[in-house]
Amino acid sequence: MIKVGIIGAGRIGRVHGESVQKFVKDAEVKMVADPFMNAEMEAWAASMGISKTTKDYHEILRDPEIEAVLICASTDQHSPLSIEALRAGKHVFCEKPIDHDVEKIKEVMEVVKASGKKYQVGFNRRFDHNFKAVHDAVAAGKVGKQQIIKITSRDPEPPSIDYVKVSGGIFLDMTIHDFDMVRYLSGAEVEEVYAEGSVTVDPAIGKAGDIDTAVITLKLDNGATAVIDNCRAACYGYDQRAEVFGDKGAIAISNDTASSAVFSGKDGVVAEKPLFFFLERYMAAYASEIEQFVGAIVKDTETPVEANDGLAPVLIGLAAKKSVAEHRPVKISEIRAAYGL
Amino acid sequence: MIKVGIIGAGRIGRVHGESVQKFVKDAEVKMVADPFMNAEMEAWAASMGISKTTKDYHEILRDPEIEAVLICASTDQHSPLSIEALRAGKHVFCEKPIDHDVEKIKEVMEVVKASGKKYQVGFNRRFDHNFKAVHDAVAAGKVGKQQIIKITSRDPEPPSIDYVKVSGGIFLDMTIHDFDMVRYLSGAEVEEVYAEGSVTVDPAIGKAGDIDTAVITLKLDNGATAVIDNCRAACYGYDQRAEVFGDKGAIAISNDTASSAVFSGKDGVVAEKPLFFFLERYMAAYASEIEQFVGAIVKDTETPVEANDGLAPVLIGLAAKKSVAEHRPVKISEIRAAYGL
Amino acid sequence: MIKVGIIGAGRIGRVHGESVQKFVKDAEVKMVADPFMNAEMEAWAASMGISKTTKDYHEILRDPEIEAVLICASTDQHSPLSIEALRAGKHVFCEKPIDHDVEKIKEVMEVVKASGKKYQVGFNRRFDHNFKAVHDAVAAGKVGKQQIIKITSRDPEPPSIDYVKVSGGIFLDMTIHDFDMVRYLSGAEVEEVYAEGSVTVDPAIGKAGDIDTAVITLKLDNGATAVIDNCRAACYGYDQRAEVFGDKGAIAISNDTASSAVFSGKDGVVAEKPLFFFLERYMAAYASEIEQFVGAIVKDTETPVEANDGLAPVLIGLAAKKSVAEHRPVKISEIRAAYGL
Amino acid sequence: MIKVGIIGAGRIGRVHGESVQKFVKDAEVKMVADPFMNAEMEAWAASMGISKTTKDYHEILRDPEIEAVLICASTDQHSPLSIEALRAGKHVFCEKPIDHDVEKIKEVMEVVKASGKKYQVGFNRRFDHNFKAVHDAVAAGKVGKQQIIKITSRDPEPPSIDYVKVSGGIFLDMTIHDFDMVRYLSGAEVEEVYAEGSVTVDPAIGKAGDIDTAVITLKLDNGATAVIDNCRAACYGYDQRAEVFGDKGAIAISNDTASSAVFSGKDGVVAEKPLFFFLERYMAAYASEIEQFVGAIVKDTETPVEANDGLAPVLIGLAAKKSVAEHRPVKISEIRAAYGL
Repeated sequence: MIKVGIIGAGRIGRVHGESVQKFVKDAEVKMVADPFMNAEMEAWAASMGISKTTKDYHEILRDPEIEAVLICASTDQHSPLSIEALRAGKHVFCEKPIDHDVEKIKEVMEVVKASGKKYQVGFNRRFDHNFKAVHDAVAAGKVGKQQIIKITSRDPEPPSIDYVKVSGGIFLDMTIHDFDMVRYLSGAEVEEVYAEGSVTVDPAIGKAGDIDTAVITLKLDNGATAVIDNCRAACYGYDQRAEVFGDKGAIAISNDTASSAVFSGKDGVVAEKPLFFFLERYMAAYASEIEQFVGAIVKDTETPVEANDGLAPVLIGLAAKKSVAEHRPVKISEIRAAYGL
Repeated sequence: MIKVGIIGAGRIGRVHGESVQKFVKDAEVKMVADPFMNAEMEAWAASMGISKTTKDYHEILRDPEIEAVLICASTDQHSPLSIEALRAGKHVFCEKPIDHDVEKIKEVMEVVKASGKKYQVGFNRRFDHNFKAVHDAVAAGKVGKQQIIKITSRDPEPPSIDYVKVSGGIFLDMTIHDFDMVRYLSGAEVEEVYAEGSVTVDPAIGKAGDIDTAVITLKLDNGATAVIDNCRAACYGYDQRAEVFGDKGAIAISNDTASSAVFSGKDGVVAEKPLFFFLERYMAAYASEIEQFVGAIVKDTETPVEANDGLAPVLIGLAAKKSVAEHRPVKISEIRAAYGL
Repeated sequence: MIKVGIIGAGRIGRVHGESVQKFVKDAEVKMVADPFMNAEMEAWAASMGISKTTKDYHEILRDPEIEAVLICASTDQHSPLSIEALRAGKHVFCEKPIDHDVEKIKEVMEVVKASGKKYQVGFNRRFDHNFKAVHDAVAAGKVGKQQIIKITSRDPEPPSIDYVKVSGGIFLDMTIHDFDMVRYLSGAEVEEVYAEGSVTVDPAIGKAGDIDTAVITLKLDNGATAVIDNCRAACYGYDQRAEVFGDKGAIAISNDTASSAVFSGKDGVVAEKPLFFFLERYMAAYASEIEQFVGAIVKDTETPVEANDGLAPVLIGLAAKKSVAEHRPVKISEIRAAYGL
Repeated sequence: MIKVGIIGAGRIGRVHGESVQKFVKDAEVKMVADPFMNAEMEAWAASMGISKTTKDYHEILRDPEIEAVLICASTDQHSPLSIEALRAGKHVFCEKPIDHDVEKIKEVMEVVKASGKKYQVGFNRRFDHNFKAVHDAVAAGKVGKQQIIKITSRDPEPPSIDYVKVSGGIFLDMTIHDFDMVRYLSGAEVEEVYAEGSVTVDPAIGKAGDIDTAVITLKLDNGATAVIDNCRAACYGYDQRAEVFGDKGAIAISNDTASSAVFSGKDGVVAEKPLFFFLERYMAAYASEIEQFVGAIVKDTETPVEANDGLAPVLIGLAAKKSVAEHRPVKISEIRAAYGL
């Protein structure tokens, strides 16, 4: 039974805490830390059967019984906490992104390597039943030689302008998941990026220096071309689709709905909208990623999303950012060179 | 080039006239007869390139150049006109039903036999792309041993009460198509019928001595059970679905729509309603049935829907009527015996 | 926190045990009893955090801390255990059916009434997202006046012949869920039943005195007609569909699949089969029914599936059985009269 | 009754000839010209009721009765024949593209203007039920402010290498339809193009100096971004999809199939592949475009696809070509400036 500590008792920290307590056979949460620990967080912990809460995450790092730490703090804390936890001898599951700063990610990667500990990045979509079905079909050779990969990823509602300002921009905050999906579905690496960005949702997002709508074309090292379309708002819900097309066929996924009910009436034949909220949409995926993280510890195997998988989409995101800024295609090798990678 | 005469220039007569002129390579309409022939009918004939119109169908029967006659007159004229045309040496395509009276159908069948001429009954659904796809899959053994057959057949709007009164009742007027589909899809004969009827659309239909809603269970001689559900009104359009389930799988068809467009908005994901009007829905099927009738003449083969195919669903319809009246399952053999069949 | 005891640690007992431990906030399992309690069952209990196991269910009934009992024993034990548990002052959740014998169900109902305790029958489909969506739309008046209700319910594989022999027959074992769905979806009572049964899956089922394929027509007291089609085997998986058609529209549900992936290749456009196994298909529904049972205790409200809801489908099943045997429609009032109801 | 002459009796010439004869009330074909006129073409003409054939198209231009000419010759003849026919006082329907050479298109446009005659370009997809449904919804404001437009257009099989060599390249030959669709669906003009091209189908296409796979991003003057993905081969058939996403919703179309039949078997739930052949897929659209061309003559209105609609996608295609060659986004204004437009 792996004892787990969670740093950060916000929304995603609680999702992971619940996953461990309910769905992960070989693990249990021993302690939850949050600098703003309050009665409501404590009540949640108690309801989950987690006996110990603290404001000081060092208690987790010092506890010799705790073998694994889930880092669910704010993004700017991901890399320093990763390093501190690894150095304290813990296996680490870190929410995405590791950092917006490549140098800090490099540092984390070095510490991971030196530590010999497990490290997993929280790209939850890899564990989703739909995306996994595409991945598995592609990996099994069902589509043959990949030619075109398409990902549609639209949020139901834009984040707050305050969030936008610290988000690192749409590519590092939102598209990063889609960059990860391109790598996951194709099993290939991105070589070049061309990104077209616009502000069509809210001018305030533009004033904050970001874009809210994007179409990104990516050249992959397997010869395929990928294209992602993003929007910060879709009035019909959380739109998450993908397609991989190759010379033996195409595999595509559509959105999940709350039920399969279809109403035929005088105004048309009406199905349900996609699930609106990402936690609802990816609930099972969140449980599965934690289960596999614990599995990697128990069986001493590689984690399914390693530190390098955390780095790659950040590099793609930086290339996309540069592409928009300079209005030209940008090679990943350019970005890598800038960071001595 | 087969010269064709059409008796009856109403809605369905014009559909068939247009089919012959536009889609049937080996035939052309030489004459159209209608006792109420008027300027509008004549204009239609002219627009179709049909030079000759008349109020007297005997002109068609007397014309030695005309080899085939399409009987599109009112239902009560189907059997006498069939007999007269056959005796005049014409091949006959007769709209469904041959007659509501089994004795008259028997008479037609005898005349067909004696004449050596082709005779086809207008069960257009046999020529529809969807129903044909089910038929072909079943005939090819794709579903294996048939177990359950389901047909949903709902009209968009009820007919007028005047029509209801002379329609022969829902089973002989509307369900007759579905009885034909059960025979066509299964390739089997019906042995027993249990029908449940109700009036849920319009009480006036009940006052006219008919029902407007029915669920009919049929036992087939291949061991399968079929079930038909009918309604005289469906607010979302003309609902025409079928499924054949067997030990190797199930094949099902859904409704046709004007386009594949789907709108995702805040109120749901909305597809188009089924096509509303039967002529629109079965347009291509009407052309195909006439083409195959002409083909049977040209190649001297059996027609695809023979006189016996016109008799069988009438017997099933009479059994269904009796089942509702006597509130019990009724064997087809009972009905046949009553008519010395 | 409601303390729960579970009688029966087989497949369904464990499903409910896991539900309580993981998904029901206000309850926990204190004890599990099974006459064949063994190491494997004990290991399961331990993994679920259930500390106490026993071979003797009387321990559960005697434990004053345990307020609620889940009866997951074999069918013949459902009614005696229900009575014993109620008399011991426990709230009871009983797996379906309460009994095959109406007299015993009547006895249970009397004891429920006298006890003042909560009683819920395990009709899990009422808690399924798809069936609930239909129910809610109908209850909200979306389809208007109900006209036709259709339920397709086909199992992926037939049960063993040994099971068939003690199952009470297809109507009391399998169709009972569909009878419950007719009542649940329509909110109406069944007045008359006509059932057509056949053996198309396995002749051994016929030799065991049962049928494996059925089409059942039901007249409801709201004027609608319902039709159920059943088969003990469908090679493509567990087929669970329903449709309610009324004068304002039709609402229909289709099957759930493991993913939305669709592969377009040279052999067609291929989607996934329906989920194969009922526990997989109704997993969330099982959790929800227990949650609502506990909720009814906590809030002191009616349970969502009361003892009468356990009786009604048994009466319909007996009518269906009689209908097949006597080859005629059978009124529920006939069955009720026979039992003095 | 408008008398029509057809120049070119190949595949598309015959499609249009049949459309006029069968589906266009106010027109009839008087003459067909083809330099390679042979017995087979003559037989076709006879079967369509077209009495006059010739090897010399001047006979058509000289015939004072013929008011309209359909130009269905090889692409290099489109512009000279357009000019000659217009100067002969004929209304002209010209197959796409008017020319690969912008100067020649400009000349045609000037002649059209000077002639006062009707001129329509053969962009058939504008008349397709699916694309039209999207267009109409967008034009009616259903999607609100347009944000992202997506078009998937994949051919079932690549053309011959000989054809590729004279095709003008994928952008002017195949994507030109999609460029037209972007303009048609959005009602907006393209301002900038970025195209990513690759050879994934057949290296011989690359050797012939062309590409066979492309992803093209387009910035529109209404603020939306469009993306087209193309491939010269899709093993599952002719893939023709589109989506327009805006702040009030998204409207999307999928492929047409021969029937709605779906087979559920042990290998999955299998629907039909998209229609394979473009003539089959767009049959009704071809009839509709000619009908509307004739309608514009009869009612003396604008044609639905004017000469400028023939120019615009060629400019976009040239920009796409330049984008691939120079590996950068290219503004349409750059292309226009080069041609003094």
